Amino acid sequence: MAGIGKLVVIGVGLIGGSFALALRRAGATANVIGVGRGRSNLDTARRLGLVDRALALDEAWTSELADADLVFLATPVGAMPALLETIAPHVGPRTVVTDAGSTKQDVIAAARAGLGGALPRFVPGHPIAGTEHSGAAAAFEALFRDRQVVLTPLPETDAGACQVVADAWRCCGATVRLLDAVRHDAILSAVSHLPHVIAFALMSELAARQDAEQYFDLAGTGLRDLTRLASSHAGMWRDVCLANRAALRGDIARYRAELDRIDALLARGDGDTLLALFARARAARDAWLERTSGRDEA
Amino acid sequence: MAGIGKLVVIGVGLIGGSFALALRRAGATANVIGVGRGRSNLDTARRLGLVDRALALDEAWTSELADADLVFLATPVGAMPALLETIAPHVGPRTVVTDAGSTKQDVIAAARAGLGGALPRFVPGHPIAGTEHSGAAAAFEALFRDRQVVLTPLPETDAGACQVVADAWRCCGATVRLLDAVRHDAILSAVSHLPHVIAFALMSELAARQDAEQYFDLAGTGLRDLTRLASSHAGMWRDVCLANRAALRGDIARYRAELDRIDALLARGDGDTLLALFARARAARDAWLERTSGRDEA
Repeated sequence: MAGIGKLVVIGVGLIGGSFALALRRAGATANVIGVGRGRSNLDTARRLGLVDRALALDEAWTSELADADLVFLATPVGAMPALLETIAPHVGPRTVVTDAGSTKQDVIAAARAGLGGALPRFVPGHPIAGTEHSGAAAAFEALFRDRQVVLTPLPETDAGACQVVADAWRCCGATVRLLDAVRHDAILSAVSHLPHVIAFALMSELAARQDAEQYFDLAGTGLRDLTRLASSHAGMWRDVCLANRAALRGDIARYRAELDRIDALLARGDGDTLLALFARARAARDAWLERTSGRDEA
Repeated sequence: MAGIGKLVVIGVGLIGGSFALALRRAGATANVIGVGRGRSNLDTARRLGLVDRALALDEAWTSELADADLVFLATPVGAMPALLETIAPHVGPRTVVTDAGSTKQDVIAAARAGLGGALPRFVPGHPIAGTEHSGAAAAFEALFRDRQVVLTPLPETDAGACQVVADAWRCCGATVRLLDAVRHDAILSAVSHLPHVIAFALMSELAARQDAEQYFDLAGTGLRDLTRLASSHAGMWRDVCLANRAALRGDIARYRAELDRIDALLARGDGDTLLALFARARAARDAWLERTSGRDEA
């Protein structure tokens, strides 16, 4: 059971807000300070009971860090280098810091550059959970329930700090896995970052057509679900795609090659090979869902 | 109100079965004959009350056509040319024929080639509804409720026949639109056929990786929803993609060009343009869902 006397959440959106709410509801923390850019989002967070107090980034919020037990960074990854540098001189000697960034190598590099002596108490993390909605209003207690959280500790990460973060996530109902940051970024590029690019690309291409409305008027639930990720936070995903662009560009190339293969089958009317490809894809998806059923349906 | 004395459904899967069930439940037909390839699927259709009687394609089913009021073809479009030729000499002088094919130009060409004197009583149709599941067991009464059905009548199509088919669909809770077949195929290529190819391609590429299981183990609901269409009936979609391949290949090319554009932005680290593209995609999707809310959420 996590016992977090004081929690500071920087970025009180879908992820930060849901983390705070889940811990509060579990009775695992008595005092949550929310820090964020926009006053109206902070007011929402207060009104919804996600945080006890809320401070804007242009207020004197760094004084809240010295006696914090846990600081949770839940901003877009592009904002983290400056943020880590800002908090470094203010965190207390026992304050544990963690993040929720979708990419880990860039956040780790930023922590190494900016955190100074607090580095051993930094535990890089990534909850594999989310919806296409954003902001404090989108937060909900069960977001992390039965989801996985990946922690990518450094060689110098303090074991006790790692334990604090893992306990907090388990308190939210998540299961915790440890993984190498390079491997994390390679896998997430393929199963998360590429799917976002795929969805944004399709919506962008269709929306740019002159008669786009007529197209959307005849679209059904298939297009709606396939493009769900294109309703995600644009700034957050710009940051993720840039941070992980080497891996992502490799995956875009592999994906394009597969589209080219299908296009070539269409060009020569090779229905047998096309059928085999579709059937293999279907079998792989059904096997995956079968393996993880119960976990993903929660 | 549709009054269909006798309905013959050829292909009692998700679409054919749901059509039969909706009309039965609405009291719009008293006698439904199901015709299909597989005996076990037909038994399921009977057990679930989708049809009154069920005949396999290798039984003497064509004698059921002479006194049929409506014949509904709900097989993969690749099977329709042979099927239209088979039924032509057996349908009665007042029998109306319609189909549920996802492509219309190819089905119309097959009808022109095979239906002979029954051509004016053929009403090409396409219900824009479905799930990724297939077979009689996947059928449900509400599948077409608040969905659109596109009819693409020919110049020679009998107005009364068109009315019979439109009434039947309205009885299932659908709204009916008329559209030119070429325009139908162009739009559906972009909003339905391309999305299926996108989903099949991604699952196929990921599943072919040597360590695919590790990838899928870290995948969340984003990948699950984005690839939902890859669990669709492989044979049906092979047929659709081949039937509409000219339009589809054009859309694949446009889509690939958009992926290339994103890849180029990543290559040069152009975050501003990337953000604008993502934000535009998001706004387009949100506007589309806003416009159609209530219709698609039913």
